[in-house]
Amino acid sequence: MVTRKEVAELAHVSEATVSRVFNGLGPMKAATKERVLEAAKVLGYHPNAIAQSFARRRSGNLGVILPYMPKVHLFSAFYFAEILSGIGEQVREQGYDMLLSLLTPDDELDYGRLYRSQKVDACVILGARDTESQRNSLIQLQEQGHSFCLVNQRFEGLSFLEVDADHVEGSYQAVRHLLAEGYQKIAFLNGSPQYSNSLDRLHGYEKAMLEAGLTIEPELMFEGNYSRTSGYEAAAKLWEMRDRVEAIFAANDRMAIGLMQGLRERGWVAGRDFAVIGCDNSDAAKLSDPPLSSIGVPFFEMGKQAARAVLARVGHGAVEHELQVKLPTELIVRQSSRIGKGGV
Amino acid sequence: MVTRKEVAELAHVSEATVSRVFNGLGPMKAATKERVLEAAKVLGYHPNAIAQSFARRRSGNLGVILPYMPKVHLFSAFYFAEILSGIGEQVREQGYDMLLSLLTPDDELDYGRLYRSQKVDACVILGARDTESQRNSLIQLQEQGHSFCLVNQRFEGLSFLEVDADHVEGSYQAVRHLLAEGYQKIAFLNGSPQYSNSLDRLHGYEKAMLEAGLTIEPELMFEGNYSRTSGYEAAAKLWEMRDRVEAIFAANDRMAIGLMQGLRERGWVAGRDFAVIGCDNSDAAKLSDPPLSSIGVPFFEMGKQAARAVLARVGHGAVEHELQVKLPTELIVRQSSRIGKGGV
Repeated sequence: MVTRKEVAELAHVSEATVSRVFNGLGPMKAATKERVLEAAKVLGYHPNAIAQSFARRRSGNLGVILPYMPKVHLFSAFYFAEILSGIGEQVREQGYDMLLSLLTPDDELDYGRLYRSQKVDACVILGARDTESQRNSLIQLQEQGHSFCLVNQRFEGLSFLEVDADHVEGSYQAVRHLLAEGYQKIAFLNGSPQYSNSLDRLHGYEKAMLEAGLTIEPELMFEGNYSRTSGYEAAAKLWEMRDRVEAIFAANDRMAIGLMQGLRERGWVAGRDFAVIGCDNSDAAKLSDPPLSSIGVPFFEMGKQAARAVLARVGHGAVEHELQVKLPTELIVRQSSRIGKGGV
Repeated sequence: MVTRKEVAELAHVSEATVSRVFNGLGPMKAATKERVLEAAKVLGYHPNAIAQSFARRRSGNLGVILPYMPKVHLFSAFYFAEILSGIGEQVREQGYDMLLSLLTPDDELDYGRLYRSQKVDACVILGARDTESQRNSLIQLQEQGHSFCLVNQRFEGLSFLEVDADHVEGSYQAVRHLLAEGYQKIAFLNGSPQYSNSLDRLHGYEKAMLEAGLTIEPELMFEGNYSRTSGYEAAAKLWEMRDRVEAIFAANDRMAIGLMQGLRERGWVAGRDFAVIGCDNSDAAKLSDPPLSSIGVPFFEMGKQAARAVLARVGHGAVEHELQVKLPTELIVRQSSRIGKGGV
């Protein structure tokens, strides 16, 4: 193990100077710094980074907080995979590592642990929900001066750093498209209202329906939990209402795919007997049978921007003035909604 | 900020005793330890974990090293997503966090950085390839006494901790299935031989072909890079050889799907004009048109076992005697290979 002393001797400086170079502390002649770094390189000196971090109070890690759900292969969900890929690209560009922490959403969420233990300099929080306890946890985190950025979640009345997508407009366009194809009896399979994006989608749906002079039928509003299984289960309820349904808007692709499977088993084929649109424009939407119309959401870019924004708050890069960023969504029409009412 | 001194006063012990409790050092009366933890809880005392780690030389993080590939949404690849989900479940059970580091495979790989900087206690290494420089990096890491576990990669002649799957048997079963369906002209689209699993699949393919009294035709051996695009590109070359091909075995589902797309554009439909089998049994295999026969590989379980094995080596859990673990694979037959030769 090469010591600081050996580096100091080779570079003809004091040990304190070696420390100051590696801790980035205080003013320093460029030539001196150069000489120390050269000596360290020659000798293969790697200062103990924990000791270093202790001096600088920097971990070099960006925390990413994910909701732990038993049995769910979290990274295999398109939504999380894309956001994480975006975060990964950004941290890599900035020389950071990613520290992933899986927290059970129903636990008392101790977001502060990672900061207090100096495992991370800042966090990106994914899959947060608007509950009393999560609100309190986040308010506390903010009061403690910790930097964090939410992705795809807002808390009405609270002002956090966040990167979101325009789910209102996306849903509005989806329903407008169904209306343009001649459908009027449009059911809506949404996710939990604890997610702001569920509420956004509801607003988009309502706006398009009301603009078209239609009424919102409570019986045609269903709730799943964003899993394929919950879509499959909703198919049974939808089947009971089939005389009143021509088209379905689902709040993500997995629910839409489960729904199509459940209805197909009953002889109702998407793109032939009814129209369906999902959200997320996941790989599964492209591959499903029939290919699924969907709302594209720039999850990768959202992850990238969240990482960039929060690292800027802890001294890496230019701080943007806007606390809240909202990226555009995009309607992608495929076979599942393209038949038009004439085809039914 | 609550100090160690305040905890010591409340618990009626010395400050050194408080330190020893939080650093897990030395013998200690259970009642004393209990009193200190109770006092810490009452006061909301959180010892600085970096200082703590410095004393114990433990980070509480399991490193996961991933290959960085520009433009590739790494976490969206079924392969990495499943392994990461398995690692994530295991580290969570053991109270660890995951530190992800994306390394460019062509760089001189400095795997040691994370250990030297005490960011991690041990590592799981994904996507390693058998190159001169990666061999040297891993040998060095082992000589330095750092604990790591490879997933889905072996290095002939070297003895590392590793969790692999039985790709030889999986490929053997895939080709046997094609032979049983009446196909004899079976092309093979493999990945780079820098991956041991590519070589394993080649062995399984050769074994089945030779056992059936068939010869291995070099013209029917193609190489892609495990991306959908490389499968799509291989379709052009396969199309030139179509008189000599009845069935194709592809080393992963993404290449198989790209291949099916490329051949469909030329009028050749999988499951009708030719048979195809992929590997991985990804979600895409179930959703593709036609549904793709595939070899199921327990990636989630491989990730879980790798994390468990390597954490055991650094004092968390029972150490297994076996350095090399090999999990079974499973043939899943779907429509893409089920028509039999009579259907052609």
